[in-house]
Amino acid sequence: MSSIGIMAVGGYDEIGRNMTAIRVGNDIIIMDMGIRLDRVQIHEDTDVESLHSSDLIAMGAIPDDSVLNGVASKVRAIVCTHGHLDHIGAVSKLAHKYRAPIIATPFTADLVNQEIKAERIFRVNNEVISLRAGERYQVTPDIELEFIRVQHSIVDCVFAALHTKHGTILYANDFKIDRSPTLGEPPDFPRLRQLGREGVLALITETTNAGISGKTPSEQIAKDLVWDVLMGTEETESGILVTTFSSHIARIKAIIEAARKMGRKPILLGRSMEKYWGTAVRTGYAERGNGLAVCGRRKAVDKALKRMMVEGKDKYLPIMTGHQGEPGAILSRIANGETEFRVESGDRVIFSAGIIPQPLNMSNRHTVETKLKMKGARIYDNVHVSGHACREDHWELLRMINPEHVIPSHGNLNSHGQYLMLAEDTGYKLGYSIHLLRNGQELLLG
Amino acid sequence: MSSIGIMAVGGYDEIGRNMTAIRVGNDIIIMDMGIRLDRVQIHEDTDVESLHSSDLIAMGAIPDDSVLNGVASKVRAIVCTHGHLDHIGAVSKLAHKYRAPIIATPFTADLVNQEIKAERIFRVNNEVISLRAGERYQVTPDIELEFIRVQHSIVDCVFAALHTKHGTILYANDFKIDRSPTLGEPPDFPRLRQLGREGVLALITETTNAGISGKTPSEQIAKDLVWDVLMGTEETESGILVTTFSSHIARIKAIIEAARKMGRKPILLGRSMEKYWGTAVRTGYAERGNGLAVCGRRKAVDKALKRMMVEGKDKYLPIMTGHQGEPGAILSRIANGETEFRVESGDRVIFSAGIIPQPLNMSNRHTVETKLKMKGARIYDNVHVSGHACREDHWELLRMINPEHVIPSHGNLNSHGQYLMLAEDTGYKLGYSIHLLRNGQELLLG
Amino acid sequence: MSSIGIMAVGGYDEIGRNMTAIRVGNDIIIMDMGIRLDRVQIHEDTDVESLHSSDLIAMGAIPDDSVLNGVASKVRAIVCTHGHLDHIGAVSKLAHKYRAPIIATPFTADLVNQEIKAERIFRVNNEVISLRAGERYQVTPDIELEFIRVQHSIVDCVFAALHTKHGTILYANDFKIDRSPTLGEPPDFPRLRQLGREGVLALITETTNAGISGKTPSEQIAKDLVWDVLMGTEETESGILVTTFSSHIARIKAIIEAARKMGRKPILLGRSMEKYWGTAVRTGYAERGNGLAVCGRRKAVDKALKRMMVEGKDKYLPIMTGHQGEPGAILSRIANGETEFRVESGDRVIFSAGIIPQPLNMSNRHTVETKLKMKGARIYDNVHVSGHACREDHWELLRMINPEHVIPSHGNLNSHGQYLMLAEDTGYKLGYSIHLLRNGQELLLG
Amino acid sequence: MSSIGIMAVGGYDEIGRNMTAIRVGNDIIIMDMGIRLDRVQIHEDTDVESLHSSDLIAMGAIPDDSVLNGVASKVRAIVCTHGHLDHIGAVSKLAHKYRAPIIATPFTADLVNQEIKAERIFRVNNEVISLRAGERYQVTPDIELEFIRVQHSIVDCVFAALHTKHGTILYANDFKIDRSPTLGEPPDFPRLRQLGREGVLALITETTNAGISGKTPSEQIAKDLVWDVLMGTEETESGILVTTFSSHIARIKAIIEAARKMGRKPILLGRSMEKYWGTAVRTGYAERGNGLAVCGRRKAVDKALKRMMVEGKDKYLPIMTGHQGEPGAILSRIANGETEFRVESGDRVIFSAGIIPQPLNMSNRHTVETKLKMKGARIYDNVHVSGHACREDHWELLRMINPEHVIPSHGNLNSHGQYLMLAEDTGYKLGYSIHLLRNGQELLLG
Repeated sequence: MSSIGIMAVGGYDEIGRNMTAIRVGNDIIIMDMGIRLDRVQIHEDTDVESLHSSDLIAMGAIPDDSVLNGVASKVRAIVCTHGHLDHIGAVSKLAHKYRAPIIATPFTADLVNQEIKAERIFRVNNEVISLRAGERYQVTPDIELEFIRVQHSIVDCVFAALHTKHGTILYANDFKIDRSPTLGEPPDFPRLRQLGREGVLALITETTNAGISGKTPSEQIAKDLVWDVLMGTEETESGILVTTFSSHIARIKAIIEAARKMGRKPILLGRSMEKYWGTAVRTGYAERGNGLAVCGRRKAVDKALKRMMVEGKDKYLPIMTGHQGEPGAILSRIANGETEFRVESGDRVIFSAGIIPQPLNMSNRHTVETKLKMKGARIYDNVHVSGHACREDHWELLRMINPEHVIPSHGNLNSHGQYLMLAEDTGYKLGYSIHLLRNGQELLLG
Repeated sequence: MSSIGIMAVGGYDEIGRNMTAIRVGNDIIIMDMGIRLDRVQIHEDTDVESLHSSDLIAMGAIPDDSVLNGVASKVRAIVCTHGHLDHIGAVSKLAHKYRAPIIATPFTADLVNQEIKAERIFRVNNEVISLRAGERYQVTPDIELEFIRVQHSIVDCVFAALHTKHGTILYANDFKIDRSPTLGEPPDFPRLRQLGREGVLALITETTNAGISGKTPSEQIAKDLVWDVLMGTEETESGILVTTFSSHIARIKAIIEAARKMGRKPILLGRSMEKYWGTAVRTGYAERGNGLAVCGRRKAVDKALKRMMVEGKDKYLPIMTGHQGEPGAILSRIANGETEFRVESGDRVIFSAGIIPQPLNMSNRHTVETKLKMKGARIYDNVHVSGHACREDHWELLRMINPEHVIPSHGNLNSHGQYLMLAEDTGYKLGYSIHLLRNGQELLLG
Repeated sequence: MSSIGIMAVGGYDEIGRNMTAIRVGNDIIIMDMGIRLDRVQIHEDTDVESLHSSDLIAMGAIPDDSVLNGVASKVRAIVCTHGHLDHIGAVSKLAHKYRAPIIATPFTADLVNQEIKAERIFRVNNEVISLRAGERYQVTPDIELEFIRVQHSIVDCVFAALHTKHGTILYANDFKIDRSPTLGEPPDFPRLRQLGREGVLALITETTNAGISGKTPSEQIAKDLVWDVLMGTEETESGILVTTFSSHIARIKAIIEAARKMGRKPILLGRSMEKYWGTAVRTGYAERGNGLAVCGRRKAVDKALKRMMVEGKDKYLPIMTGHQGEPGAILSRIANGETEFRVESGDRVIFSAGIIPQPLNMSNRHTVETKLKMKGARIYDNVHVSGHACREDHWELLRMINPEHVIPSHGNLNSHGQYLMLAEDTGYKLGYSIHLLRNGQELLLG
Repeated sequence: MSSIGIMAVGGYDEIGRNMTAIRVGNDIIIMDMGIRLDRVQIHEDTDVESLHSSDLIAMGAIPDDSVLNGVASKVRAIVCTHGHLDHIGAVSKLAHKYRAPIIATPFTADLVNQEIKAERIFRVNNEVISLRAGERYQVTPDIELEFIRVQHSIVDCVFAALHTKHGTILYANDFKIDRSPTLGEPPDFPRLRQLGREGVLALITETTNAGISGKTPSEQIAKDLVWDVLMGTEETESGILVTTFSSHIARIKAIIEAARKMGRKPILLGRSMEKYWGTAVRTGYAERGNGLAVCGRRKAVDKALKRMMVEGKDKYLPIMTGHQGEPGAILSRIANGETEFRVESGDRVIFSAGIIPQPLNMSNRHTVETKLKMKGARIYDNVHVSGHACREDHWELLRMINPEHVIPSHGNLNSHGQYLMLAEDTGYKLGYSIHLLRNGQELLLG
């Protein structure tokens, strides 16, 4: 039996439902347990919390972990490397099958705990261990886990390095190479370079944007774009609505800062805004209070929107859910006229987000934009930069780490193929040093 | 006879060869005389300097000014509002037909003079008058010309206002609403707002990007992107080639600044780099000397490229022509191996420009990129922001000026149609207050 | 007052909700009264039958006929030129405002009557007059209506010519130039050529496909494509589901014929299949009986699907609704597993239809295809040809009719712009002989 | 050592320069030796006939057969399965390295001989053996080659089956599943089904259109489309120019037939028209004479074009080279006004071909179309169906053959990936039963 096995459980054939199991001798470490939301969305009236894992597996919504049947007892740890749902969203459905702790950075761990609490079918009793970027954890006598700081579109994202006697495996899902982040520090380049010098057996890496030329702009650019749009206008009296990813704390902070500079009161609207902002406050990524109103429940949201109409829309900068046109989100409710907020000619709606390219999102966005435009709104789309590394960022990381083996994960054949070609440019060979895995397959190393 | 006529001579059916004639009573003022380069390009071995205007008109390359036959003697001035070839490139072919001075800002006027000097068929004797942004010029006792500062992807760009007893006509071709330009001042908003309050009879406006949502990012964003790409790398030893628009002085200055920060010697390569940089130095937009090498002629370029190979590619930051893959440009010559500069694996080629969306440009770009990649180059594409106003910039200008009539120019039916819909959003009506003209047509006002 | 006015009521800014009012002296003839379904669709849970016209107008779903306020009593006839909902779907909401008969070909008239019967808000008492292609009807002493045979994707489609003392107006919405139709005769070219020779004052024409190069393939090509797909397989035992436009009688007949050749029993499934097929039988476009089962109500459909599972899927060729992925349609219900029909690996689903390019349709299609593929279905998409004239078909019609004036209708600025350029190729001039109207505008002629 | 090796020499990373070497024990059979024309095209003034193989390999234009260094003496045969240049175009540059006969069907063999004769650098002395579809050839005592009839966009195309004691390998490059071809017989399904029953070790297959839904329409559909366009017009007096692939004998015959039905004289124009038609006549795929004029040399072409102007364009149906806008081709020369053929308003230019999606082709096509349109031509684009199998055709072949292993060839990562997913649908597993190879790699079987 090979000493190391990389088991592609989910996310190797698609964007979403990430899960990789790394076998080291007889021990198994699971990396991420995510959900694939577009597979949930195409089933109307699906209530994920109340669905059994087997149904969700049949829908292709969560990883099919039957590949671990028979070796479940060998699982020693479940590691979550950041808090997006495509990395932690299946924890509440699958983790209870394994008698192993869940290890994550503080922000991510807090979100994992919330997922577990919201679950209605399964009782998840796994211990949740908080490990900071830069810290190490001895999983077994032979396996040491290390978290290495990196940047992404959510805070407290890390690479996970598994140090074993057979070599080091670096799990890099997801990341961007941001040298001027607006929240937190740049990636820990010294440690990454050092790892490269020490030698890395295998790099498991996302490939989402591997087909996009150049490098991903820094979050600083996104902040500048947002500020340029918010403050660059001669029509300062109009209403402004901003919508962005509720988990993107750095972006939200940039918008709040702009609001203060503009003399408008920032206000966060929507249940998931409340959830992620609360998590950020608890874990030190955002300050409590400071005059910021946060309205989660519908009643509070509606009251706040009504107050804006009374006091004047130009006094406020509401930051809300709904950038993908999600039917129940605040922006959609405003577009439908279901709240007392009246959109008038010249009001500006700023989407500080790209459209996640799924047909349902495009349709929902089209619907909400059409309704807003019919009321006179002006649309500012895609005031945003991505949180995923582009082709030349991958090039740099790959050369910095210089692993013996590379395994593209978190992508589909298209993005994996793009990554393969870039790896070939620097000498990797398909089947020898770079490996395409499909969900359910295992790669043996050593 | 109507008191005012707007005559669409060229650029109303296409991007390129802009020319508008404004009739005020019996006097005519011409705005811009441009060339349409893609119509030149599809004819191999075309030497524009040696072609007669009638041939160029037949090719659709320059405006068909036969609409002015019979009234040529009424032309009182030819106004050029910025120095791009689609606005001044036909001056050398058409201006001699009119006994009228050419009026332009200093930078533009210098370029017009160079065009005239290079012409081989026609002797152009028109006086070239230099008028600064903010200044006025009495064209006839009844017509006063005013230049108003604005921003674009070339320096010294202005709107031209014609003040007549029948009302003011504002010619806005081309522009961006940049509140944080890196060279020069923001558009003269106070004057524009004042014009709006005084009343404007007609706004003639470009529509290039009217179909693009939101606002065009500031040139400051482009500078940040360029710096991020140039300085954000762990591989600091590799060669870096940058290519950008040679007329884009602000961009070139940003790249030069970055070079100095990186400890690399900036060097401008290519005949047209030399031409525009020289013009910028003469007109005060760039400083002479300061250690910057500028190589125009082929021999000087080749010598400079050879020196880089000898002294080390990592000592230099060459800024060169060729961003559209133009066959004779420096970047193409390097890609072809026609110079002593050797592109090696990991060398970076930065296109600080978008592809002008013509099939020939796409083909040329594909060719040069393919050759560069085969040598191991890493490509950074589109490190750039546009110089044209997007939809919401147009919205703001239109509401600020609040003209009685709007005439989309410098665009095709697609971009004009996009502009029309945005104008309708704020109350304009097709055929009543917004007018679609086709090349050769005249709109009568008043 | 001008003798002729062309009033653009709806469908001039968009695809859908067609309505044109033609004023001849003091009399008004309305052409078509359609609905724009994508505007209905973006409002969830909209029940059109129970909505008031004013709400539907506010939604942009039906034509805003307020332009006819004050002259409603002058309306002498409402003419419907074919039976698609974007041409007749607003009759039940608007016709009652006008004391005028509705005139349509027999198939169209039958559909109009069904629309009126289904309406729940308004009582529509207008007489419905059936007029055959080739026949004439004296609307007023001065206005004679003539129907001229043409082809489209629905049977019994006509051009409407209004003969007046001021000239003839030809309304050509919608059509294709099909010389080898599979149902009915080719367009009446001799009459069209004769009209061209006699002189036509104005041609009002659709422009849907004016931007598509060449000519639209004949329906015979669609039939060949369908047969090729249905019969061209070595796997003859698998289940086959076909979905197509329920109003496309010619296509359905081609599929039924194929079924018989294959030795499979054809069966029509879905309420709207039943509706249109019944109409075709009543009006002589299809034969009653002949062993064809037609199941409209859900219970009958479910029973039929169950029978197929019992007797063998390979015995049947079900033809069903759902080609746009409409949530309630039969195909979606099968994809959801809501019927007893089991899709198995290798079963073939044939979409004899294109996707109507609206984001919601794309999303719905993606949803239904994803579910079908997850069950193992093989997808045959777009086994179809369009029912709309392409660019060269328009060229031919325009030159055949040679009208003094052309008015593009039933399209948006993009398709109208494409038509304009083609009309310019043969000598028409914007604003002189070809006119762009926006909803709500009137063009005066003569 | 494994008993069977599949060596990917060229065409596995790209469309073009196909070459596969199949090792059976110690013997090697080469399948195809093609050229990649887009790699030639990007180098201006490249004269392939005069270039050495090593230069062409460095350009990526022909397969890099260095993988066969050391085993060249083991090559027992070079098999060419059809006559397109991406399958035979490198024979003249590479075949002389191997002491082995070239085996091809009569039409292909004739083309191979012409390639060899035109070569200016290498003397190619390999015997060229003609083998008909349905026939077998004993290559070595252990290896028997069988040609199986199939359809493609060129006549006399075959699958090559290698029967060995280790099993049968089926090489299927390129093909379409055409059940109603207009020239020749449908694919030999009985033999293919029999092969499937007997057992096939490995299927090597093209994937060009594997990403396109459904099945490729029959050539009969293309014929119907061409006839519909040619004959379906009321403007019968205008000039008509047709351009298509000169190697597509079936298409050319369909056009000639149409010409006769229209009462126009068909005439083939262009060197490569003459070459392929001559080959078709020699090999019995076309009849000599029959009143068809064929003009290859420029002088003859120009004379013929002049004659058309004298006698009347409506008397002729010229069929010519230039569908990709190739600069020297007849259509480009006509567009440039370099011949006496005058294109006038209403003349029709029919492209019975798709654009091969390379940027240079798109640019060339744009250029020639622009010039033709400026002269008044009407363009009929893409009157064509593909010669490559679409997704469901691949599905059927794969299930019919039911091979133990599948190796996608002749495609890039994108089309191979599409094929992989379809193969997975019917049970194949990446790395186990379906294998992605990159140029230069060898797959060991058995």
